[in-house]
Amino acid sequence: MAEFDLIERIRKAVGPPGHGTLVGLGDDAAVYKPPGQLELLTCDAFVEDVHFRRDYATFEEIGAKCMVANVSDVAAMGGFPTRAVLSICVPPDMTDDDVYALYRGALDVCRRYGAEVVGGDTVSSPAGLVVSVALTGSVGREHVVTRAGAVVGDALVVTGELGGSEAGLRALAGCLPEDGGVPDAKRRHLAPVPRVAEAQALIEVATPHAMIDVSDGLSSDVWHIAEESNVGIVLEADRIPVAPCAFDVAERLGVDPLELALASGEEFELVAAIPSAEVARTTEHVEAVTGSRVTAIGAVVDADMGCRLLRAGCTDEPLLRTGFEHLGSSSAAR
Amino acid sequence: MAEFDLIERIRKAVGPPGHGTLVGLGDDAAVYKPPGQLELLTCDAFVEDVHFRRDYATFEEIGAKCMVANVSDVAAMGGFPTRAVLSICVPPDMTDDDVYALYRGALDVCRRYGAEVVGGDTVSSPAGLVVSVALTGSVGREHVVTRAGAVVGDALVVTGELGGSEAGLRALAGCLPEDGGVPDAKRRHLAPVPRVAEAQALIEVATPHAMIDVSDGLSSDVWHIAEESNVGIVLEADRIPVAPCAFDVAERLGVDPLELALASGEEFELVAAIPSAEVARTTEHVEAVTGSRVTAIGAVVDADMGCRLLRAGCTDEPLLRTGFEHLGSSSAAR
Repeated sequence: MAEFDLIERIRKAVGPPGHGTLVGLGDDAAVYKPPGQLELLTCDAFVEDVHFRRDYATFEEIGAKCMVANVSDVAAMGGFPTRAVLSICVPPDMTDDDVYALYRGALDVCRRYGAEVVGGDTVSSPAGLVVSVALTGSVGREHVVTRAGAVVGDALVVTGELGGSEAGLRALAGCLPEDGGVPDAKRRHLAPVPRVAEAQALIEVATPHAMIDVSDGLSSDVWHIAEESNVGIVLEADRIPVAPCAFDVAERLGVDPLELALASGEEFELVAAIPSAEVARTTEHVEAVTGSRVTAIGAVVDADMGCRLLRAGCTDEPLLRTGFEHLGSSSAAR
Repeated sequence: MAEFDLIERIRKAVGPPGHGTLVGLGDDAAVYKPPGQLELLTCDAFVEDVHFRRDYATFEEIGAKCMVANVSDVAAMGGFPTRAVLSICVPPDMTDDDVYALYRGALDVCRRYGAEVVGGDTVSSPAGLVVSVALTGSVGREHVVTRAGAVVGDALVVTGELGGSEAGLRALAGCLPEDGGVPDAKRRHLAPVPRVAEAQALIEVATPHAMIDVSDGLSSDVWHIAEESNVGIVLEADRIPVAPCAFDVAERLGVDPLELALASGEEFELVAAIPSAEVARTTEHVEAVTGSRVTAIGAVVDADMGCRLLRAGCTDEPLLRTGFEHLGSSSAAR
C-alpha cells in the first residue's frame, strides 16, 4: 500500500485544482478550460547520468530543473506556463521521501511561475531515474515567437550571462573547492532560472522575430535559429557575456572561458533576433523591468554565410556546435 | 550529424501541422488553437523491462502501445485525443531506424484516432529505453466522465473481454507454441486497442456516472472507481467476460482464467458505472454502433462494503488488487 500513501502525500502537496481546472491530479486525465488565446505544449525528459547525477543534485533540484527546462521553453515562445504533467520512473534505491522531494521541487517551480501540476505517472524503473515533464502554456496570438522568423539585418541579443552552468558542472565533476566563483557556478548548474519575465519584457518593447532559450548551448542554439529561419548568424566573440563565475572556474581548470560560454547548455537565457534599431531601447527596458541585462552579440546575415564566430583581430571562423547533443556521447553527465 | 538526420526523418513522417496547429514539431513548444470546449491532459511513461520487453515487442509496437495507453485515458474521460508530445530515452544499442520505427508506431495510433504529434524530446539513456507520452484531448462539458461519480444502485458494466493481455504476456514469457488462443492473446498484449468509439457510444445512450479504462487490471481499477466515488462495488465472478484466448492460455498454464481476467492490465477496455435501468439499452446501442459487447458485471453498493467478489455458490470475498502496482515489484515485465 506504500504506493497509495505516496500518492496521497503528492495529492496533498499539489492541493486542490486551480482556477479553470475542473479535474486535477488523480483521474485518467486532467480536465480544464483551455486558454482563450493560443495554447503551447512542450515536453522534456531528464535522464540520470545524462542530464543529472544524484551525487551532485538533490531530488528537489532534479524535479525543479526538469520543470524549469519546460517553463523556459514556454517562455521562449512568448507564453506563460499553465499546466504540467509529470512522469517519474523510479529506480529501486529511491524511497518514497525521495519521490516526494522530487515532486516538491517541481511543484515549487510551478507555483513560482503560476502553473499547476494536473497529472502524473509514477512507475518503477529497473535502471536509473528518469523524469519527464509535459507543460502547457498560454500565449496571445500577437506574442508568439518561434525560431523561424529571423531576417537579415536583425541584431542577435542574449539575456543575462553565459557559461555558468557548464562551469558549475565542471566544478562539481572536478570537486573544486568551494570558493571564488565555484558556489555561484554550481548554483547556476543545479538551480537555473527560467526567463519568463524577461521574455515578456522583450516582447513588450521590441519585435522579436525569432527567439530560443539556451538549453543545448549558445553555439548549438544559434544554429537552431539560423536553420529554422533560413539565415546565417555572425557572433562577435568579444561581446558574448561570460559569467564571472565561469571566468573563475575556467581559469582554475585552464580552459577558455569563451568556449565554456559557447558550449554551456541549460543556461535558460534567451537568445532573440530583433530589429537592430530596437537594441538600445530593448536593453534599457528589459533591465529596468527585470534587472537582467541584455547584450547584443551578433547579427543575422545571409544563409550562405552559415553561422560564424568573429574574434577580435582574427579572421572569423565557422561556429562549431559545441553544446549538448541529445543523442551524442560527448557529454557524459549534465 | 546523425541526430539531425533522424530529426529530419521524424519531421517528414509527422508531416505538416494539422488543423488549428500553428507551430508543430521542431520549436521550443507547439502552438495551437485550443479546443472551444474543455481540454484534457494525460501522460504515461513506459519503461523497458517493466512495461515492455524488447525481445517480445517490436519498436513499432512499443511506440504504438504507449500512445494507445494515453488515447485510452482520454477516451475514458469521454473525450477525443488531439495533440501528443513524445519523449524517447534511447539506450546505446538502439539505432536511428529503431527510434524511427518507434515514432512510426506512435504516429500510426495518432492518425487512427485523429490526433497529431506536435513535439518531442529524444535523449540518450545509459540504461534502458523509456517512452513518455503526454496527450491532450477535447471533451464537451456535458460529456466529461470522471472516476468520482458512481452512486449506490448503479450497475457496473465493462466493454469487450478481459484477460487476453495478461494471457499474452504469460504466453510470451512461457514461450507457448503458436496455436489455440496464443496468437490472439499475444496480439491483445502487444497491440491493444483503445475504446474511443465505445466511450462515445456509452455516453450517447447512457448517463455514465463514473468511467475508467482497465490499465492496471480490473480488480485494481474497480477499486479506483470505488475510492474516488466513495462507494463500494460488488463484482459477480460469473459475469466477468473472460476472453476465449485467456481461457485457452490459462488452461495450458494451469491457472485460473478468472484470476487472469481480474489481474490483467493494459486491457484498455472501459469500466463504467451507469444507472441500472440503462443497462439493456446501453449494451444494445454500444454493440450496434461499435461491434463491442458490453456486459454488466456488478453493482455499486455502500462504501463500507468495500469492493467484493461474489462467486456463485460461495460466500463473497474481498476483491484483492491483483493488477499492476506502479511502484511494486510484483510484475516483472508487462
